[in-house]
Amino acid sequence: MLNTLPLKGMNDYFPDDQRKTDYILEKISAAAHSFAYEKYDAPVLEPVELFSAKSSVELVNEQSYNFTDKGGRHLILRPEMTPSMARMMARVIKEKPKPLRWYSFPNCYRYERPQKGRLREFRQINFDLVGTNSIYADAEMISLLRSVFSNFGASENTYSIRFNDRRLINSLLGAHGFNAEQSILFFSTVDKKGKMPDADYNEYIREKHDGQAEFVLKYLQADSISAISELAGTNANAEFSQAADKCREFISAVNRLGINNLVFSPSTVRGLDYYTGIVFEIFAESAGPARALCGGGRYDNLLGLFSGENLSGTGFGMGVYILGLFLEENGLLPDFSEKTASEKSAFCFFTEPGLASLTAAAAAQMRLNGWAVEFEPEAGKIPKMLGKAQKKGYKFCLLLGPDEEKKQCIVLKNLENGENREIKVTQVH
Amino acid sequence: MLNTLPLKGMNDYFPDDQRKTDYILEKISAAAHSFAYEKYDAPVLEPVELFSAKSSVELVNEQSYNFTDKGGRHLILRPEMTPSMARMMARVIKEKPKPLRWYSFPNCYRYERPQKGRLREFRQINFDLVGTNSIYADAEMISLLRSVFSNFGASENTYSIRFNDRRLINSLLGAHGFNAEQSILFFSTVDKKGKMPDADYNEYIREKHDGQAEFVLKYLQADSISAISELAGTNANAEFSQAADKCREFISAVNRLGINNLVFSPSTVRGLDYYTGIVFEIFAESAGPARALCGGGRYDNLLGLFSGENLSGTGFGMGVYILGLFLEENGLLPDFSEKTASEKSAFCFFTEPGLASLTAAAAAQMRLNGWAVEFEPEAGKIPKMLGKAQKKGYKFCLLLGPDEEKKQCIVLKNLENGENREIKVTQVH
Repeated sequence: MLNTLPLKGMNDYFPDDQRKTDYILEKISAAAHSFAYEKYDAPVLEPVELFSAKSSVELVNEQSYNFTDKGGRHLILRPEMTPSMARMMARVIKEKPKPLRWYSFPNCYRYERPQKGRLREFRQINFDLVGTNSIYADAEMISLLRSVFSNFGASENTYSIRFNDRRLINSLLGAHGFNAEQSILFFSTVDKKGKMPDADYNEYIREKHDGQAEFVLKYLQADSISAISELAGTNANAEFSQAADKCREFISAVNRLGINNLVFSPSTVRGLDYYTGIVFEIFAESAGPARALCGGGRYDNLLGLFSGENLSGTGFGMGVYILGLFLEENGLLPDFSEKTASEKSAFCFFTEPGLASLTAAAAAQMRLNGWAVEFEPEAGKIPKMLGKAQKKGYKFCLLLGPDEEKKQCIVLKNLENGENREIKVTQVH
Repeated sequence: MLNTLPLKGMNDYFPDDQRKTDYILEKISAAAHSFAYEKYDAPVLEPVELFSAKSSVELVNEQSYNFTDKGGRHLILRPEMTPSMARMMARVIKEKPKPLRWYSFPNCYRYERPQKGRLREFRQINFDLVGTNSIYADAEMISLLRSVFSNFGASENTYSIRFNDRRLINSLLGAHGFNAEQSILFFSTVDKKGKMPDADYNEYIREKHDGQAEFVLKYLQADSISAISELAGTNANAEFSQAADKCREFISAVNRLGINNLVFSPSTVRGLDYYTGIVFEIFAESAGPARALCGGGRYDNLLGLFSGENLSGTGFGMGVYILGLFLEENGLLPDFSEKTASEKSAFCFFTEPGLASLTAAAAAQMRLNGWAVEFEPEAGKIPKMLGKAQKKGYKFCLLLGPDEEKKQCIVLKNLENGENREIKVTQVH
């Protein structure tokens, strides 16, 4: 006998699960429509070079599914969507009015140890706004995410929007004499915040950062643009001031949209790749474990690998699975265990084998009149069939027995109030 | 510079293409809803054994993407959905009321020479009705397909529904003394009809079938159940008569549904795997090349590999790409090259940089009132922006200049009749 389970770290989507995914993606699609984003998709397989050019070596070599095909091509099952998006944008960016607004729901693949919240096949939500460096594009990302969470009924106190600015921090570090190597270490350290006990973390900082440890510790306490400016002090250069001004403009634009859960977060740096400006995360703040639900930010040279053109954009990625966990923990998902039969839907059956053809014709007729009809292909007794219909959540039955055959009609029965209505069966065309 | 093209035989889906796919899948989903089918999905990767158990050796070894992962598992990118569907059904079949109606839109993968109508990554449409051997389940497949094609506006004369019955043919062959090997050869020969010139084909039959060539040629002329019965003649056994009766019942059930393009087709045998009863194809009969758009049939022991239970079902698969070609050739697809802005959608812009924040707030307010709003994040002159909006197909603009700022309002402009309406900008919550 063959194993009936899917591969480790991958999920089957039975109708209950699929309804949940569809519910989530429909809400996201509604937000996309509301902000005029257009859907795109790319092949799941790509040449491995597309990823090794920009993604981390660890991601490509260790954490991905990659193999050589029969034609000798080294292929990868995409671990993320951004490189494919950039490749596609590079194909059309010259002929399209900018900015471009694109979104997608790609399946992505990582060869990692499976654990709660991490799958080897996972559905991702990606939004990108490319071809403008306006701070109002960054603000739109936040506005869009706010709209997504509102669509699910998640109030502002269930999550926070944490942001930072890579340009701001880079100029801060420059002003404090960090060289390239020290800066890389700085980002790596900052990214570890909250991932180990506080005491260990402080020790880690003192160990790794020598004479700069005090600065790192102070930095991690700086919870506003003013605090960061104070930290920069008289060392602040023009680039720092400009970045700080942009951040203030960003905060004010977001607040003007009625969004009050945006916070400056020194530890939000979103890895080293791509990002060159404002970066952000949605962070779960209520029920369930504290975790990032979504991350994104501005990138300045994503298309540089494909064309001479230097195009600035901003975007984010969010996992459907993680988002689903958050919504469940906050009681924001309907019950998907039973399909809820829509108003105009009926379970259709007949009581004797000879009546199948007439009943099937009646079902077809009802469908043409806008009904969803589940047709029971084998004859059954009335009480048993009514019970089956009720178990399946139907409010209506269509039933046909010998009496109905004589009258060439079918009975539409309301299971809630017992009302019957006879409907004439005519020739379907 | 990196190549911007996707892998050979795979397609990028730009928003235009994606709109087409979504249009097609929405129509199919509507039919699925109307017949009470439920959506499911499975991982793209499966253990290779799942496919080598039932699919042809050629498909698994030569025509698929398969590889060994870092954990030593031999994996395959699914070349078709049926084995995964069977695996999933086996997991839940005991606890669910039968029959089960499932559908899915899986991406599938084949390592074949790419050509028109054949891709290496392709989107498939799969429907299955499992847990009943009623002939009315077979008829439902036809009814469902009719509904799908009607949803697209395809009339009966643009396609035919060709069917045959594996049980009928097997008992016919048995009655004529075909042994197992000769039967396999027979199906292979019959399947080649129309794939080479007639003269060559006749010669091929005479060469391959020796003393049985006359029978094969006569069989291929038998275009009805009566003709097949005549061919069976006095050799016909009880199984043959039973199968012939079932076929007649099937034809009559389908005709009763107002479907008149069902034809018995001796050459429709749908390969050797799975199928054990009625098999069918939708065949393009109008514009474009003659080809099968869809194929399916009854299988009796799909779950046997996973459980002791012997469950009968019927189903079909259809390629989105091929279906799209057929619809295009018949002029049944809208123009997807430009997005058609929906009634309540507007292009929103401001004329001076200082007005961005107020305009973004106005856009957010309009979205809360049900409008889809594309926000231009950089200031622009009115004529240029109106032109951009028109090019993008918008009927409405939202514009904000210094006058509107004074009044704290935004202008909703109808681009078709030039009408302006002022809308007060309030605080968004």
